[in-house]
Amino acid sequence: MPKNRQFRLVRRPHGDPQLDDFALVESQIPAVPVGGFIVRNHFASLDPAQRGWMDDAPSYMPPIPLDSAVTATTVGRVYASANADFSEGDWVLGLNALEDYSVVHPGGFTSKIDVAAVPSPTLFLSGMGAVGLTAYFGLLDGLKPAAGETLLVSGAAGAVGSVVGQIGKIKGCRVIGIAGGADKCKRLINDYGFDVAIDYRGKSMRQLADEIAAAAPNGVDMIFENVGGDVLDAGLMNLAMRARILLCGLISEYNSADGKHGARNLWALIVKRATMQGFLIMDYVPQFGAGGMQVAQWMGEGKIRVDEDVQFGLENAYPAFMRLFSGANTGKLILKI
Amino acid sequence: MPKNRQFRLVRRPHGDPQLDDFALVESQIPAVPVGGFIVRNHFASLDPAQRGWMDDAPSYMPPIPLDSAVTATTVGRVYASANADFSEGDWVLGLNALEDYSVVHPGGFTSKIDVAAVPSPTLFLSGMGAVGLTAYFGLLDGLKPAAGETLLVSGAAGAVGSVVGQIGKIKGCRVIGIAGGADKCKRLINDYGFDVAIDYRGKSMRQLADEIAAAAPNGVDMIFENVGGDVLDAGLMNLAMRARILLCGLISEYNSADGKHGARNLWALIVKRATMQGFLIMDYVPQFGAGGMQVAQWMGEGKIRVDEDVQFGLENAYPAFMRLFSGANTGKLILKI
Repeated sequence: MPKNRQFRLVRRPHGDPQLDDFALVESQIPAVPVGGFIVRNHFASLDPAQRGWMDDAPSYMPPIPLDSAVTATTVGRVYASANADFSEGDWVLGLNALEDYSVVHPGGFTSKIDVAAVPSPTLFLSGMGAVGLTAYFGLLDGLKPAAGETLLVSGAAGAVGSVVGQIGKIKGCRVIGIAGGADKCKRLINDYGFDVAIDYRGKSMRQLADEIAAAAPNGVDMIFENVGGDVLDAGLMNLAMRARILLCGLISEYNSADGKHGARNLWALIVKRATMQGFLIMDYVPQFGAGGMQVAQWMGEGKIRVDEDVQFGLENAYPAFMRLFSGANTGKLILKI
Repeated sequence: MPKNRQFRLVRRPHGDPQLDDFALVESQIPAVPVGGFIVRNHFASLDPAQRGWMDDAPSYMPPIPLDSAVTATTVGRVYASANADFSEGDWVLGLNALEDYSVVHPGGFTSKIDVAAVPSPTLFLSGMGAVGLTAYFGLLDGLKPAAGETLLVSGAAGAVGSVVGQIGKIKGCRVIGIAGGADKCKRLINDYGFDVAIDYRGKSMRQLADEIAAAAPNGVDMIFENVGGDVLDAGLMNLAMRARILLCGLISEYNSADGKHGARNLWALIVKRATMQGFLIMDYVPQFGAGGMQVAQWMGEGKIRVDEDVQFGLENAYPAFMRLFSGANTGKLILKI
């Protein structure tokens, strides 16, 4: 009889998550709930947002309860079912957790997926999943780019950022990406077709601002912000009049305990009459089908490349998750369970 | 023959402006330029924005040149003219400087005003000037309040903030004001009709956030932000879903040299899908007439009270200006020249 291993949160992180904030705990596979089913998870999405869910703070999701498995979007197969719509062996995508087996209650946020139609089930966690959809709706609906406009993308070599830049190019924008390290900057140009790549490493906010200014002498019309802190501040120094900023993530701030850096150049919003708007992909659930199809089409046509960084083993969940914050990952970070 | 005294910027302030960043210098009254005129300034507006103009930083106005009089909006009378539209003795309002006499070149930003129609010429620098217009257009066009919504105003006892709150009440909003000290908080309730007054002094960001939460258990729909720093962060902790924030000023940050506090709770924009927009009244110049008439009508009907803090003497320009940052002033700060 197989066991259920769970990667549990046992202490709320203060600053950087530590190995012993978590514990890998073995238990029985849960019983099938009335009208629900059990999923055997095969792949889990590792996302910066999970860091926020570990805090006991007001948010769009309830905090992960202590001694529970860490919430995660997973792809897996139905293991046992008491629901007529989901049969044993069906592939599903849903908000589950970092564990071998998840309970899905009736009406839970889980849907069937057609893995036979794509090269790998992991695509439902990357290009056709939240990554591709965040880039698609964030850029097209949140920022509404026009051809000829200049788009600045931070975290540009990351899963979302790299797709944002590529969709920006499809829409005729001049695209500038900020990433950490020479290798990532090379990928921006060679793999993702960005016009300019700027390496933020080892640079002060002012140096970074100067490099953006050199790349965009008339300022940037749009910022797709994934990072925050100095990177956002350097972008704020380079706004064109009535620039739009989409706040998609602030990964540089998520692990700061008390000493958040903050955005110190908000005065630029006044000077440039600019707008900064918060974005969450969950507002677009009813449009996921249409958006996913468009992204999949672009991927099929070779217009968008979506990279994945697949790490192996639930027992490696901690070092895998920390790749998000060290900048080690390139492309969508996924854990094979 | 009268002299022209100028309150000149002789060194760019680093952090808090110091007395010897300025010098009061006597010179000849300038000659009338071809097609222009000379204004004898009687009243000057002292505004937080002037602090920004003293920096050598990119902004919506050119930095004040060193050894020049500090730029200021003034009300005065035409002293000598070579322009058929402006005769000696005409009252005018314009962007001039802290000096007895200002040169207005042809086409300069100066317009005639009808001082006989109002109780005091200073009204053109307060209720019917930038203060009233900023409150009017910022709130009504920038935030678009609906009756029943909750409006949070920071710097609420200040010139702009007090008018914003009063217009908010006219529009049927529940209005919460943040101000410094018990006296100012009393004024918010008794003089300006705010529903709730919160004193930020001596409170941590979290304490302030808790007080806002107690006053607005369902969150605030709008923030009219004049302050920044901890005050903005506490407001960000209390956003209702899809809240709108108008960034009108960040007075708590203007004098910080290198250690700007910054906005550390921008994550709340993501969680609440909120929008923060920068605002400058100069975008509304073509609509000043209509806006000013509405504000004047409300003042005449006793629905809006606009307080003025008139300080006397160009030689007192420095201590008068610093009242803005010490929180000493209540109402629109004006210097009688």
